[in-house]
Amino acid sequence: MAKEITNREDNYSQWYNDIVKKAELAENSAVRGCMVIKPYGYAIWEKMRDQLDIMFKETGHVNAYFPLLVPRSLFEAEEKNAEGFAKECAVVTHYRLENDPDNEGKLRVDPNAKLEEELIIRPTSEAIIWNTYKGWIHSYRDLPLLINQWANVMRWEMRTRPFLRTAEFLWQEGHTAHATKDEAIAEARQMHDVYAQFAEEHMAMPVIKGYKSENERFAGAVDTFTIEALMQDGKALQAGTSHFLGQNFAKAFDVKYLTSENKEEYVWATSWGVSTRLIGALIMTHSDDQGLVLPPKLAPIQVVIVPIPKPTEEIMEVANKLTKELKAKGISVKVDTDDRKRPGFKFAEYEMKGVPVRLGIGARDLAKGVVEVARRDEKTKELIALEGLVEHVEQLLSEIQDNLFNRAIKFREERYSEATTYEELKEILNIKGGFVKAYWDGTSETELKIKEETKATIRCIPLEGGQGEGTCIYSGKPATQIALFAKAY
Amino acid sequence: MAKEITNREDNYSQWYNDIVKKAELAENSAVRGCMVIKPYGYAIWEKMRDQLDIMFKETGHVNAYFPLLVPRSLFEAEEKNAEGFAKECAVVTHYRLENDPDNEGKLRVDPNAKLEEELIIRPTSEAIIWNTYKGWIHSYRDLPLLINQWANVMRWEMRTRPFLRTAEFLWQEGHTAHATKDEAIAEARQMHDVYAQFAEEHMAMPVIKGYKSENERFAGAVDTFTIEALMQDGKALQAGTSHFLGQNFAKAFDVKYLTSENKEEYVWATSWGVSTRLIGALIMTHSDDQGLVLPPKLAPIQVVIVPIPKPTEEIMEVANKLTKELKAKGISVKVDTDDRKRPGFKFAEYEMKGVPVRLGIGARDLAKGVVEVARRDEKTKELIALEGLVEHVEQLLSEIQDNLFNRAIKFREERYSEATTYEELKEILNIKGGFVKAYWDGTSETELKIKEETKATIRCIPLEGGQGEGTCIYSGKPATQIALFAKAY
Repeated sequence: MAKEITNREDNYSQWYNDIVKKAELAENSAVRGCMVIKPYGYAIWEKMRDQLDIMFKETGHVNAYFPLLVPRSLFEAEEKNAEGFAKECAVVTHYRLENDPDNEGKLRVDPNAKLEEELIIRPTSEAIIWNTYKGWIHSYRDLPLLINQWANVMRWEMRTRPFLRTAEFLWQEGHTAHATKDEAIAEARQMHDVYAQFAEEHMAMPVIKGYKSENERFAGAVDTFTIEALMQDGKALQAGTSHFLGQNFAKAFDVKYLTSENKEEYVWATSWGVSTRLIGALIMTHSDDQGLVLPPKLAPIQVVIVPIPKPTEEIMEVANKLTKELKAKGISVKVDTDDRKRPGFKFAEYEMKGVPVRLGIGARDLAKGVVEVARRDEKTKELIALEGLVEHVEQLLSEIQDNLFNRAIKFREERYSEATTYEELKEILNIKGGFVKAYWDGTSETELKIKEETKATIRCIPLEGGQGEGTCIYSGKPATQIALFAKAY
Repeated sequence: MAKEITNREDNYSQWYNDIVKKAELAENSAVRGCMVIKPYGYAIWEKMRDQLDIMFKETGHVNAYFPLLVPRSLFEAEEKNAEGFAKECAVVTHYRLENDPDNEGKLRVDPNAKLEEELIIRPTSEAIIWNTYKGWIHSYRDLPLLINQWANVMRWEMRTRPFLRTAEFLWQEGHTAHATKDEAIAEARQMHDVYAQFAEEHMAMPVIKGYKSENERFAGAVDTFTIEALMQDGKALQAGTSHFLGQNFAKAFDVKYLTSENKEEYVWATSWGVSTRLIGALIMTHSDDQGLVLPPKLAPIQVVIVPIPKPTEEIMEVANKLTKELKAKGISVKVDTDDRKRPGFKFAEYEMKGVPVRLGIGARDLAKGVVEVARRDEKTKELIALEGLVEHVEQLLSEIQDNLFNRAIKFREERYSEATTYEELKEILNIKGGFVKAYWDGTSETELKIKEETKATIRCIPLEGGQGEGTCIYSGKPATQIALFAKAY
């Protein structure tokens, strides 16, 4: 089974597609650019969603649900936002089908059921939400409004790849309203921190925190904070963004509030989101040529028990006892009792699916009071005494979580450079890729030229180490910002 | 605040709308027929979803996600299903907007971005899912396939009401594939049982289990099993359906499997769903003229603590200790420390929101070692000793859950009649409403005439007591089925 995956060295992009397919995470559908998220892929998303939802609620947010469709006139109200998404909009123009008189048994759009105003499938929900907030916010007592939505959105992308870039994707979008600018900025930064914490502690994926250049900002935002991760091919991936929206949407939708001094003011806003794209990031951070590698905290199955060679009564007694004890510790376990498959086949299958720990239970080992414990991350195995095995596995899961993070940190450190000349920047990007720090004069002109010539973009101005006095590596002009360049997904 | 609700007796429909508004469950949006589910309403949906999800997983199902959009050619493949939903379809015809040359700052559909084939926003997902299953099912080893999806769907309804009938709604849809007819029927009935159990044990809403007449069946189903509940105005509400789809979708999408004897057979199917409509059912089963009444198992806040008159240090010490102890028992608690509102105002507010138990903590009571405990269902209150209060509250929540169910059972029993003549049927429907059992000759003709003349429909043929030998009350012909008639939502 593992043989069927392309090696990363041979073709990284094909390797990625192979993993998505062979680990049964997703597949393309009959609808251009829309994927089917298969049960195993969806189970990973459920783990992500549940953890993020806890973190959002801990920071005072509640969930709600807003309509899928946005009337065109609302969509276009905030001009920059509309301009940014207009080219990617799926548009509903009719509300009924009828029998096609020219083709028996076929349907066609009913020309008499044309909408007076077109409806856009939300590419993001600022417009419909701020139009709603207008009715909810009257005085400072109604603020802050701290709401999140779990939803599907649609952006008509021309080049799609499962998880990384799809026309429809699942995500969460937080939309908050505040009385003051400072409070809104603090909220945007708080959620930026929440995303970074989730990425590092749960996905075991190190990220760099920074803010976007004007060019790369969310359409309609004053400031976009981002977490940037590094994939195994040396390309960066934007894993989550949190936006300070200023009063742009409040002004577009006329959302004002009465202050405690009875003055009318526009409301301040943030929005922030992560999506099923994170599954793509997860794959490309940890997996190897044998298949998916999952951090234990997000693995749908943390431990798989494989009877060797078959589920005899003796083996099943041990397996069931272990399962019960592991589950009591909150560890998810699967016992594979399917006796149509041989153990070797199962090993390859769970390796492919990235199950962190595999317990092989055989009669001969049992006679010696031991069980074979294999860890997915390092592909090592050892015999461990049944006595104390549950504690060993618990410890091992935590060790694997840490190991994956440390490996990824080490990988990134080896690909985190500093360029003092433009030549140096180009050379680093060509030879080892990764992130490259360099002085930048802060102009879009320079940024776009570098992008054109190197295909690298400014991923962010890092929050740490993004300021200084120097000379722009491209224009030679004085620079006060240090930008982080990388080729990116 | 409570004064602002219309009495049920005066105008039941307005009472319902008032509850939805005043309890902050939902509101209409800028999009025709689409509602905004507000945080409190969504929190109820989260409780429902989480419980149902547990029950689905316990019965062996996994979640997945399929595309929102369905190409027209797939949508029309199963003719009856397509025919049933064609008139309610929102249709995407274009994938891009452009600047409107005639209106500066406005957008319009880009006429050059017309789709070759229209895409339908899913009104239900059989088509897209069975088209996908075709690639997943090859042999009997791939069966059964037990998958559920949590999603939004769209049905362009002309007359909408929050939760009860909306153009977009949230739901779950199970779609399973089986090797044999018997197995598929058993699955459809199992999920029918799961729905009934959820309704009765969690929603405290008694339901009658039965199957639908041909007229009322899901488009494309061979058999539709339903749970029918009775609302306080004597009208029935279909609360969930589970369909045995036969081989209709397998044939439409050519999904065959190889049996263990190496023969090719079409696959057997089921689908089953419940939606945010359940929130409407919940409201109309338990609530009263003071507002929402929620069964404790689905209440986002089970216990509210109100300091009287203000959150002094002494009171807060007790409130915090109680909160901690209640939470340790898995009970959700809110302490309302907002000192801009008076206790009386808060009482009305939590009454409106249906919080099952309210603890009023005041200095005078505390001096006597007691706390005022109010229950929402019966609107009674008593002084309970602080000592043992947590156990008392735990017990009380369970008692309220039972009481709501018993009240609803009693209400339904009083409105469950039998008619031996058509005159009697009409009289019962006019005077007290509710369910009426009567012999029916099994023809659509009779069913439709009764519907036309009385506005009552056959809700179901009850699984218990739906068979017998008699005379159709309408046609006078011999009848072997006893149908349950009611006016319905």
